[in-house]
Amino acid sequence: MQRREFVVAAAAIGGLSSRLPQGPEWTAWRVNGERVNRDLAELSRFGRNPQGGVSRVAFSDADIAGRRYAIGLMRGAGLDVRIDPVGNLLGHRPGALPDARPLLFGSHVDSVPEGGNYDGDVGSMAAIEAAQTLRERGYRNRHPLVVAIWCDEESGLTGSRGFIGDLPAEELGRPGRDGVPLAEKIRRIGGDPDRLAEARHGPGSVAAYVELHIEQGGILDRSGIQIGIVEGIVGINQYDVTIRGFANHAGTTPMDQRRNALLAAAELVLAVDRIVRAEAGRQVGTVGRLNVRPGAPNVIPGEVTLTVELRDLSMEKITALWERVRAEAEVVTRKYDTAFDYALQHSNRAALSDPSVRRAIGDAVGGLGLTSQVMPSGAGHDAQDLARITPMGMIFVPSVKGISHSPLEFTRPEDVVNGANVLLQTILRLDQQ
Amino acid sequence: MQRREFVVAAAAIGGLSSRLPQGPEWTAWRVNGERVNRDLAELSRFGRNPQGGVSRVAFSDADIAGRRYAIGLMRGAGLDVRIDPVGNLLGHRPGALPDARPLLFGSHVDSVPEGGNYDGDVGSMAAIEAAQTLRERGYRNRHPLVVAIWCDEESGLTGSRGFIGDLPAEELGRPGRDGVPLAEKIRRIGGDPDRLAEARHGPGSVAAYVELHIEQGGILDRSGIQIGIVEGIVGINQYDVTIRGFANHAGTTPMDQRRNALLAAAELVLAVDRIVRAEAGRQVGTVGRLNVRPGAPNVIPGEVTLTVELRDLSMEKITALWERVRAEAEVVTRKYDTAFDYALQHSNRAALSDPSVRRAIGDAVGGLGLTSQVMPSGAGHDAQDLARITPMGMIFVPSVKGISHSPLEFTRPEDVVNGANVLLQTILRLDQQ
Repeated sequence: MQRREFVVAAAAIGGLSSRLPQGPEWTAWRVNGERVNRDLAELSRFGRNPQGGVSRVAFSDADIAGRRYAIGLMRGAGLDVRIDPVGNLLGHRPGALPDARPLLFGSHVDSVPEGGNYDGDVGSMAAIEAAQTLRERGYRNRHPLVVAIWCDEESGLTGSRGFIGDLPAEELGRPGRDGVPLAEKIRRIGGDPDRLAEARHGPGSVAAYVELHIEQGGILDRSGIQIGIVEGIVGINQYDVTIRGFANHAGTTPMDQRRNALLAAAELVLAVDRIVRAEAGRQVGTVGRLNVRPGAPNVIPGEVTLTVELRDLSMEKITALWERVRAEAEVVTRKYDTAFDYALQHSNRAALSDPSVRRAIGDAVGGLGLTSQVMPSGAGHDAQDLARITPMGMIFVPSVKGISHSPLEFTRPEDVVNGANVLLQTILRLDQQ
Repeated sequence: MQRREFVVAAAAIGGLSSRLPQGPEWTAWRVNGERVNRDLAELSRFGRNPQGGVSRVAFSDADIAGRRYAIGLMRGAGLDVRIDPVGNLLGHRPGALPDARPLLFGSHVDSVPEGGNYDGDVGSMAAIEAAQTLRERGYRNRHPLVVAIWCDEESGLTGSRGFIGDLPAEELGRPGRDGVPLAEKIRRIGGDPDRLAEARHGPGSVAAYVELHIEQGGILDRSGIQIGIVEGIVGINQYDVTIRGFANHAGTTPMDQRRNALLAAAELVLAVDRIVRAEAGRQVGTVGRLNVRPGAPNVIPGEVTLTVELRDLSMEKITALWERVRAEAEVVTRKYDTAFDYALQHSNRAALSDPSVRRAIGDAVGGLGLTSQVMPSGAGHDAQDLARITPMGMIFVPSVKGISHSPLEFTRPEDVVNGANVLLQTILRLDQQ
């Protein structure tokens, strides 16, 4: 019935595509919830593990099969599917305005080894479902619409980096952990690394990018909120720290003659937690890696290496937190007569979402009568690359118990439908802007 | 000259060996310091490493060569050398009293891999030198004297355990890390594992045991004291602890929703140090082994395993300290919403030295005009086994910077001489008791 109303409304507005369609019609459109969940279940067959979840690692046979499945769905949704030189699947739906820049939305279908059925998959299937819904509604979009299934998200945002022109040539030739160079893998999935430059999209070339994704944390699930409106993807600094004391006999060295690197390290581990918690905000700080040498029960630890990871939407805040951690490290290492050095091992700059895209998501959420909260993304996403060339927004749906990268990863079917509807309604709003 | 005086004195006392020789004569006897240091240097040739120190691992060709060198020295000192069924070298010098039990003194010549030239060697060469000195002085000992070079001290006090009858049959048949059963190795050095029972000495069968050893810690070196009088060999309990939290994404899990096993472990590491230091005494406590799982920079630690080692002369004190550590572990693991369990993985009972032997050592030190302090041995020694069948005493000489089990292990030649003289004078005193 809704379909018929639209046809009438569309007939009424005729070719005046710059005029807003009447609110009531398209704001009432909804995705086919049963279908998107069925597509999600079907996708989970590719790379399925006996113990649940999938291993659909990028460039593997399972990944190629999953991509083939996605291509079929995209074509079924009337999209003109091309594999770009990096290996991204781009499904085009032409727009009515001749010079309008494309609106992109999508996610990825590759997984970590022994991953789950929701990370990337929810956003990918929902994007195709949104395109399918628009097709069924006979919607005449102003902007070209592009459903993007980015290749190899999990091991380094390869597809989205290629798309924005940030995939260095030396990375293509370098053999991966499996010994195979990236270029060869890209060819395997239908890309063409020799034409990589053609994949590149400069700043301003895309109208906006929207990605639906599972939260991968437990904030929404704990608070019972249905939608997360991502204010940005956090920046990450990882500092490798070495504390050097003196390894000695744990029996013959009195307590007051020790230079125990682990005591200094233990104080530092606690200091990271204390310093990060001391300030208001959603920053996180973790020591996840810590190795003790020589590591024997009867030898006083002579050296500890550990990594301090700090994440926040503000790189300035990360730097300020590290400055406090570093100062504390100097105090505690001196206290135990140990030496301390560090190196910034890895840094990912934070990527903020665009206020206008956030507003469109917020309007969509409001129109659907869903609850939402603005929140950072603590995990990395292709959207952080897209943010460098276009206004970006992300929609989060709850991860049950915050579990991700695990066969136990789960997002409820109704939350998948909510997310897909928010995506659909956001695209409609952005298309009308 | 001293020699001639003794001969006169000995002639004066004639066969009345139960009468004390006149103080001045034998209390003035000294070892040949040049010789004992030369013997020590000579011994260091067997298993010498290019980078210094030795690898004279028990039962190796280097060990056999070192033992052969020791046998030669023992014979040169007039000792009747036998290899007992366990493989210990026992150099006998008959005593004048028909029913007197033997007085034992000695150490070991095997080393750890890439060990030094002093651990075991100083006590072994000094014991032979003491016997040589007694021979040169024409001393008529009341007790049979036995210089003991225990086999395989480093990997488990094998020789001394066999000597006191604590070498279980199953240990003989079990292949070592090199795949060779202990029985075969004992045969290789001239022992006879089939006659192991004959090696056994029950409680009361030996008059006393004295061992000179390097300290292997830095207490004497730091304080500039020449001789350590060992009050006992510490007991050791090692507790394996597991702390279980929940591994989760370090980016998406807010600080207040974590169950971080490493934070609990860090508090426990510091608690061990604090609890052990809080009490007067020379107890030591160490966390030397600590492993974090999964151990990735971007994953909150889900599990930490660590070993708490406690050492003291009093097993009761060790148990009391552990009780405090355990109580603290329960508090801190609860604080971080983690779980905690533990197992006593390894326990060595403490062995106290005998007051009368300590007194003899103290008298010897006084007679030599040396400085001394009473101290525990934080490391294990063959003497701890001997303590189970006989009054035991140990003499320590300084280890420069407390370094041991290293090519950098060093004890000054004058300290070697001091130790050898204290050993000689202690044996003389014990023989006269």
